[in-house]
Amino acid sequence: MKVATMTTTPMQSAEDVKAYCLRTARQAKAASRILGSSSGRQRSAALVAASEQLRRHAPAILAANALDLDAGRKAGLSSAMLDRLKLDDQRVAAMASSVRQIADQPDPVGQIIEGCIRPNGLKLQKVRVPLGVALIIFESRPNVTSDAAALCVKSGNAVILRGGKEAVHSNQAIAEAMRAGLDAAGLPTDAVQLVQTTDRAAVGHLVQMEGLIDLAIPRGGETLIRAVVEQARIPVIKHYAGNCHVYVDGDADDRMAVDICVNAKTQRPGVCNATETMLFAKAAADRGLLAKVCQALADKGVEIRGCQRTRELFPTAKAATEEDWKTEYLDLIVAMRVVDDVAAAVAHINAYSSLHTEAIVTRNLQAAEQFVRDIDSANVFVNCSTRFSDGGEYGLGAEIGISTDKFHARGPMGAADLTTYKWVAWGNGQVRG
Amino acid sequence: MKVATMTTTPMQSAEDVKAYCLRTARQAKAASRILGSSSGRQRSAALVAASEQLRRHAPAILAANALDLDAGRKAGLSSAMLDRLKLDDQRVAAMASSVRQIADQPDPVGQIIEGCIRPNGLKLQKVRVPLGVALIIFESRPNVTSDAAALCVKSGNAVILRGGKEAVHSNQAIAEAMRAGLDAAGLPTDAVQLVQTTDRAAVGHLVQMEGLIDLAIPRGGETLIRAVVEQARIPVIKHYAGNCHVYVDGDADDRMAVDICVNAKTQRPGVCNATETMLFAKAAADRGLLAKVCQALADKGVEIRGCQRTRELFPTAKAATEEDWKTEYLDLIVAMRVVDDVAAAVAHINAYSSLHTEAIVTRNLQAAEQFVRDIDSANVFVNCSTRFSDGGEYGLGAEIGISTDKFHARGPMGAADLTTYKWVAWGNGQVRG
Repeated sequence: MKVATMTTTPMQSAEDVKAYCLRTARQAKAASRILGSSSGRQRSAALVAASEQLRRHAPAILAANALDLDAGRKAGLSSAMLDRLKLDDQRVAAMASSVRQIADQPDPVGQIIEGCIRPNGLKLQKVRVPLGVALIIFESRPNVTSDAAALCVKSGNAVILRGGKEAVHSNQAIAEAMRAGLDAAGLPTDAVQLVQTTDRAAVGHLVQMEGLIDLAIPRGGETLIRAVVEQARIPVIKHYAGNCHVYVDGDADDRMAVDICVNAKTQRPGVCNATETMLFAKAAADRGLLAKVCQALADKGVEIRGCQRTRELFPTAKAATEEDWKTEYLDLIVAMRVVDDVAAAVAHINAYSSLHTEAIVTRNLQAAEQFVRDIDSANVFVNCSTRFSDGGEYGLGAEIGISTDKFHARGPMGAADLTTYKWVAWGNGQVRG
Repeated sequence: MKVATMTTTPMQSAEDVKAYCLRTARQAKAASRILGSSSGRQRSAALVAASEQLRRHAPAILAANALDLDAGRKAGLSSAMLDRLKLDDQRVAAMASSVRQIADQPDPVGQIIEGCIRPNGLKLQKVRVPLGVALIIFESRPNVTSDAAALCVKSGNAVILRGGKEAVHSNQAIAEAMRAGLDAAGLPTDAVQLVQTTDRAAVGHLVQMEGLIDLAIPRGGETLIRAVVEQARIPVIKHYAGNCHVYVDGDADDRMAVDICVNAKTQRPGVCNATETMLFAKAAADRGLLAKVCQALADKGVEIRGCQRTRELFPTAKAATEEDWKTEYLDLIVAMRVVDDVAAAVAHINAYSSLHTEAIVTRNLQAAEQFVRDIDSANVFVNCSTRFSDGGEYGLGAEIGISTDKFHARGPMGAADLTTYKWVAWGNGQVRG
């Protein structure tokens, strides 16, 4: 790969780390100005080239990944962590294909969100523009390097990537492919920079660089995210956890309720949009639907922790405690509670949810509308599995993250969520009277 | 006025202030749930009633204002501050009329921003919903109480208002009218709460209440805003300053350039969208346009601080220093600089601007497009005065604030900017494979 050389000099002191971070942020800002003025065609060409680089240099990427895996095994990483870290031909091909898909998406930059002619003749437009510089902080998965870089370049932003130290060689090789793509399209390689130090202080410096970095997205465990939020002076988009719920209404279709509950809990229990608590309307529980769902879950190896009434209806359930309503198990465990009606379900969810994704199963239109209106979460579903809250499923292509905040972007975030707008007015001499 | 009684017990200790803030925030959150589920018609009726209350109780509001003015005079407030504080019949009528206008705006809540049917049949919608609870921190102008309360109620949000201590009686009387309006429409009066302590610690407590308060908007001087940003754990929308620019291109129409420069500087020099620096293309300066604009400004009593070339062309100009390029004068003073071309003007502005509002005067389409594309400010204008960056001029009705941030909202903010969205999916049994 023919790429601009990245800084590789080891840093000597705390002062060095700070100076390095400032230099990196300034380079990103300068690159972002050029990207912001570039055409969508040029940014797309950079991503097509980057996708080809990833494909062509798959052997080098896999060799770099082998170094990380070796070091990870020696450091005693868990098999789950090693699995997240591991790349193979298929995974590299998937990364390249994801970058290519993002290249082919419509350009969000320059889109006119709103426009009108004011009574004084001013032509007023709200025009979508890049945010500027994004900082993405992530843990072990190396594919975040290419996905995040591609979404940022697509939307005209420069990006500073700070990956986990266990994936340092893999991330470097992938970032070089992305930079080679920028270079091939005549765009500045510093639009994609991987932080060249594993010093923990680097993140602290970067998230305080108001005016140079416009947004931080920490992707990882709650500890990582809390640390970023504590230190940040720039906007942070985040989701701490996914304590998702399914509410089975009295008017639910039985078969649909069973299918959705089983899918929401067991199809991939370790991810944030898997369901952790199921609520049953009294009427649904009383007519045997709760027991039917419990049995279907138990058949899939799910441990059930229920309220008093749940345990009367399904005696092998363990007793749920207050703690269970708050817990994101990320495992084959579910909390279960019988509630009076949709209003009681809403009250439970708004009290305990992490505001990620909640679903109702019902044939009753009024119940569905009440649930949709009153639930205060990023994603509210009627008659489908919570597993659908995902950038790919929403048609956004890859996602840069998921937000359970209410600010700027909510739910799965795609390239357009890395933009802001400016107000543009075209006049012919208007002055204010 | 028949209103729910507000807490008036004096607070004894730091612990009391903290407990009071927590109680206020919890009351706001509870009220926001009810407002979030209310109909647009009901919220509009509350504002119509509040507008009537303001009109009917104008004498009581003016009596309260007289108390504040008396205290202000005794405390030695400047005449400018007393003017901002002062209400009269006209000003109260204007407040009532503004609330009424907001009542008549279309309801932003429930608007479907985007919608599609996914290949699996899921009907996916991005639906506009209230943010929840807003905290508005402001200084002397009492009309912010009614404007901010009206915009928050309109958009389904509860609001906590923290006004300046010099306007405490005026704000209380106005807030009571707004609460009476809510009460008349059957909505919770706690959707509008005025902070009942002048203790400075209150703001510090409130801006850390993640999960209860969704947004803080500090409106006032830079010191106030910096203090809020320093302490905040919740999102803050702000603009520190308005260092706005007019760039007169070589291809400018002379008459238009004079009119726009004079209007941008002198029509109301004390406000944030007044222009502080004017840049002239070499070609415009060389053909005498700079001197013509300087003379027109000088005739209006404007002090000119210019670069070397400006002083050659208009010898009575004082010498500008580096500091002048950074200064928001808010006064009849202007900085003036000759630059090579539009690219040089963009470079100057992107380096020194507070990212508020910049205008170009030109007949050249390419220059206009380059300026619009490359300027990184919230409002970018072609051939009109910078004074147009204003919620009223944009047709937003009253504005809740102006943002020079890039996050969530940019430029003048209306009721819709107090909303977020949720993703709603309507299915018929979809599960993920």
